Amino acid sequence: MQNVLIGGEWIPSNSTGSFQAYAPNTGEIFGEQFPVSSWEDCSIMLDAAAKAAIQMEQATGAQIASFLRAYATNIESVAESLCELAAKETALPVSPRLQDVELPRTTRQLRLAADAAESQVWRNPTVDSESKLASCLGPLGPVLLIGPNNFPLAFNAISGSDFASAIAAGNPVIAKAHPAHPGTTQLLAQQASAALATAGLPAAAVQMFYQVAPEDGLRLVSHSTIAAVGFTGSRNVGLQLKQTADEHGKPIFLEMSSVNPVFFLPSAFQNEDLANELVGSCLLGAGQFCTCPNLFVVLDSPESAQLLGRVAEEFKSRPAGPLLSESGVAGLEAAAKRFAESGAELLAGGKVIENAGFRFENTLFKVNGDQFLQQTDALQTEGFGPMSIGVVAKDAAQMEEIAAAIEGSLTGVVYGNNDDAELPALTRILRRSVGRVIHNKMPTGVAVSPAMNHGGPFPATGHPGFTAVGMPGSIRRFAKLDCYDNVDSKFWPTCLK
Amino acid sequence: MQNVLIGGEWIPSNSTGSFQAYAPNTGEIFGEQFPVSSWEDCSIMLDAAAKAAIQMEQATGAQIASFLRAYATNIESVAESLCELAAKETALPVSPRLQDVELPRTTRQLRLAADAAESQVWRNPTVDSESKLASCLGPLGPVLLIGPNNFPLAFNAISGSDFASAIAAGNPVIAKAHPAHPGTTQLLAQQASAALATAGLPAAAVQMFYQVAPEDGLRLVSHSTIAAVGFTGSRNVGLQLKQTADEHGKPIFLEMSSVNPVFFLPSAFQNEDLANELVGSCLLGAGQFCTCPNLFVVLDSPESAQLLGRVAEEFKSRPAGPLLSESGVAGLEAAAKRFAESGAELLAGGKVIENAGFRFENTLFKVNGDQFLQQTDALQTEGFGPMSIGVVAKDAAQMEEIAAAIEGSLTGVVYGNNDDAELPALTRILRRSVGRVIHNKMPTGVAVSPAMNHGGPFPATGHPGFTAVGMPGSIRRFAKLDCYDNVDSKFWPTCLK
Repeated sequence: MQNVLIGGEWIPSNSTGSFQAYAPNTGEIFGEQFPVSSWEDCSIMLDAAAKAAIQMEQATGAQIASFLRAYATNIESVAESLCELAAKETALPVSPRLQDVELPRTTRQLRLAADAAESQVWRNPTVDSESKLASCLGPLGPVLLIGPNNFPLAFNAISGSDFASAIAAGNPVIAKAHPAHPGTTQLLAQQASAALATAGLPAAAVQMFYQVAPEDGLRLVSHSTIAAVGFTGSRNVGLQLKQTADEHGKPIFLEMSSVNPVFFLPSAFQNEDLANELVGSCLLGAGQFCTCPNLFVVLDSPESAQLLGRVAEEFKSRPAGPLLSESGVAGLEAAAKRFAESGAELLAGGKVIENAGFRFENTLFKVNGDQFLQQTDALQTEGFGPMSIGVVAKDAAQMEEIAAAIEGSLTGVVYGNNDDAELPALTRILRRSVGRVIHNKMPTGVAVSPAMNHGGPFPATGHPGFTAVGMPGSIRRFAKLDCYDNVDSKFWPTCLK
Repeated sequence: MQNVLIGGEWIPSNSTGSFQAYAPNTGEIFGEQFPVSSWEDCSIMLDAAAKAAIQMEQATGAQIASFLRAYATNIESVAESLCELAAKETALPVSPRLQDVELPRTTRQLRLAADAAESQVWRNPTVDSESKLASCLGPLGPVLLIGPNNFPLAFNAISGSDFASAIAAGNPVIAKAHPAHPGTTQLLAQQASAALATAGLPAAAVQMFYQVAPEDGLRLVSHSTIAAVGFTGSRNVGLQLKQTADEHGKPIFLEMSSVNPVFFLPSAFQNEDLANELVGSCLLGAGQFCTCPNLFVVLDSPESAQLLGRVAEEFKSRPAGPLLSESGVAGLEAAAKRFAESGAELLAGGKVIENAGFRFENTLFKVNGDQFLQQTDALQTEGFGPMSIGVVAKDAAQMEEIAAAIEGSLTGVVYGNNDDAELPALTRILRRSVGRVIHNKMPTGVAVSPAMNHGGPFPATGHPGFTAVGMPGSIRRFAKLDCYDNVDSKFWPTCLK
């Protein structure tokens, strides 16, 4: 049984059970036994995190930066074995993806967080000498992070944007591995714990466990030591965590689900490559991107019928990629059922692929605008995987109505010309419900930039004012506003001096 | 029956009942009948707010600023009648308070919000030309505001900081009057609606109703048109609103309750006026300030015994001010019962004063540190009014333990010398649980400054990252992060250009 990283050490878990990783390509389990932690493990983590939080308050920005940079370097030093293991556990290709895209993104995020920790730019220092007031953002306390299955490196709870953000703000982190890639997470945690020592941060500033019973997970969220929670994953789990966090008055930053609608104005069809662009985005990583376009809207026309036809053909002819987990297959089956029951027409796929690991056929549905507007809930089901639905609006007014009915989403795309009469209104309508409005580009791909918003209104996330990607914005999620009133500057944090 | 300001007009309410204002000095009702709105009124408001939100998106910062400034001027033009009416409804004195403190604070807040709306400084514009990304904060949609009883002008839902903030961010506001000062709120709303017309903002950008059945209030919070909620008031009501808002994934900014602990180090007793300062702060406005010191902590010593004795004497000898409402009396009665049941010793007061409007004796309790640490929950009950509890710690270590047990609070105060050995640790411990750490000054008094934090961790508020007072921070509560990706700059908000 593998050790957990708790209380500042790699120690045997007080486990209630164990599990192994599986290969999504075949569905077969392999490798080491990983423990399911008991509440005893959680207790050790909570005590250690509470102590580490107090020590972390005294850490300088330079120390935190030095940890984040050493960690990035350590990750690079094990890049090959890390990506091989991640590929085995997730079936995501080493190249192009894990080694040449996701790993550099991960280390870049850690280094950008290091820069922000060092410059203290995330703290928004404000001094009003006349009123003898000074305020800035400061650390919040222990942060519990729960990462998704679809980015084993760049969104991993031990190495992703949430991790970099929470640490940069001076908080200790308790990271829960995703059980779909426990070995990858372990290897990352080893790099993190080695880096902690060199930076002189408390050994328990970073803790990691693999799995826990759901009731213990909720108990962790509710525990008074936990100051905030970060979660990326399914809406179902996200809403349970949110309810518990809300009841206990804790900030929780969620990235839960998003259909990422794409609207094609007639002028878009001048682009001959349009079907390819759309299909490429829909099927990228077997459709398992947070910003995958699960819904697109066209006006009723011969050109749009042709687009739907081409997309259906491509969906049928391209191989269905492996899904990250068995539950992904079940989720797509349920989504397909819901679409069919809502009267959507099946244009491609629709079935589980048997005896080939975790796979579901690339699946395309179609409805008209009237149908969509009658069942905006069911027809915005996110089939997390290679599944999309095309909505055929009868006219531009109905297209606007559809846009207005889109629920909170990470992205919203419009394809068209800048002079199209419909473009301004569609752009304005989408702004209200999505975090990032995009023109003439597919939504997959989230640049790491201070100007990025990887966020959006509920249910895409839990708060429309924050981004999960892009420094220093993402750091501010895990911060508390501190004000010093009539307090001598020797007691202020250095950023205020 | 008085009209409501809904759908852009002063119209008769579809009411389910009516109520009158009362004079807290005598408990007698007086004046006009004000309607309790039915769901029909709410429906009209929601429809109008949804339309106004779309129009407000097109309003310039200059237009919003012009409204806020015209409104401030209008308030000044009716200052005398406004303060007279507010004094009658709340028993707060015209001077020193309503006319010379609260009204200028109110108009100043409106004008500072106007400046921020005009300069767009609240929007955090960020452009990354290389990645073709631009982001900024933008309006969120209709905001429902529910104000408290204790500041009829400066925190009124139609004129306070929440109002100024929500409007400055470009959101329409639905304001609920506090039933303890309906006439004051009506007179303010008249000034607001007159100012709207001159600024060219939609007439329904500001709506106001007086009262609603509790279930309709929760239905309003849960309605899809409402983008965010602001509330200042009791913890009991705040938690109900929060639960509903949370279930529907809406941001809610609450200011609910706070005991505002004050710690006296031994060196503080060099200040001969200490008892007076403490008593003045405890009894200011009959103790009905959000930042009233409901709890203070001393070390066991002859000096601290003397302080407690003097405070008790002053509590007994000073007249008990009128409370804002009958429910305030009941709240104090319940708090006194809870303290007594927890073994606290009564040093002064403790009873309702009969036949004198809404009054409760100035009330002081005392416990020792061991008792406090055994019942940190019950002994942090906020008696909203002239009620405080003194905690006598046996030594400095126990004082730190008590500080660490303080729940989320707006303020935390330490009196002492900068060289006191205990000061750094107490300051650090309090920072974790309070929004504003104060040295050698009582917590009542909240400067309107960009460096202010009128906020703090739950249960003082619902989110530790935001302030309710101080521009531009307070505006950012009611904003959504918008990102434009590959979007021509002609579609950007002006702040990004």
